[in-house]
Amino acid sequence: MSDSAVSEHGRAAYAVLRQVRPLTLQAARAVTNTLQGEPITMGIRAVLERLDDQGPQTVPQIATWLDVSRQAVQRVVDDAHAQGHVEVRANPAHRRSHLIVLTPRGRDAFQRLHADELATLEMVAAEIDRSDLVTCARVLEHLADALAARNRLI
Amino acid sequence: MSDSAVSEHGRAAYAVLRQVRPLTLQAARAVTNTLQGEPITMGIRAVLERLDDQGPQTVPQIATWLDVSRQAVQRVVDDAHAQGHVEVRANPAHRRSHLIVLTPRGRDAFQRLHADELATLEMVAAEIDRSDLVTCARVLEHLADALAARNRLI
Repeated sequence: MSDSAVSEHGRAAYAVLRQVRPLTLQAARAVTNTLQGEPITMGIRAVLERLDDQGPQTVPQIATWLDVSRQAVQRVVDDAHAQGHVEVRANPAHRRSHLIVLTPRGRDAFQRLHADELATLEMVAAEIDRSDLVTCARVLEHLADALAARNRLI
Repeated sequence: MSDSAVSEHGRAAYAVLRQVRPLTLQAARAVTNTLQGEPITMGIRAVLERLDDQGPQTVPQIATWLDVSRQAVQRVVDDAHAQGHVEVRANPAHRRSHLIVLTPRGRDAFQRLHADELATLEMVAAEIDRSDLVTCARVLEHLADALAARNRLI
């Protein structure tokens, strides 16, 4: 590859990264709209999604995933607990770091919200080829994994 | 399309959104690594990028783009100004909202950083087909635009 071809490839990858911020912003607005009138906040929704997806998690694990402080996650977990959406269990692996577990009520609440989100996404993605969606998700995952590997080396 | 096919399309779009957070996180870590030992922070870098890309902007315009408060942008702009990376000019369109303009020094600083970022991206994206990168950026843009249009209706 010539220098300019290499640089063109980097620019094509940068074009992907440049689209990430606007999409994050609009997706957050769409979720905020969905949550109007719900007791579930964006933060609680994010925690419920993570627990639904990954099973029981500690507060530090959720904090790492969301890239926010443990204190911020603890406040959100306390709110979700007061709403009956999560419960706290002893952690066999770490005596001092309890596991946060989705309750059946929390699972129902997340899955109801998520069904609405999927319906919205079906509409907004209707004109995009399925194979392009699959390619896009694969490219994003590859970029995130490759960047993570590089970040660990530094 | 049957119900399950529609739902499968929504799930394919959701798979894209799910990859956005890990990529954002790893990209932010990579940029943080690049900025080690630089006087330029992540916030200053984001402002310089926006001005390099869009030309002179007001603080409220930058705040909308970054989805942060005007006060937060004003602090970052003040730091960038103290470093000589931006200057403040009268705004012919709005007497009370000045334009923030990249200085030649600011442009040089951003382009030097950005060249490093592109070199990193070339490496991490080396195994991804160029056409898949282009498809991915187009899908992300389409999703963001369609979500934005829907958000405006609500």
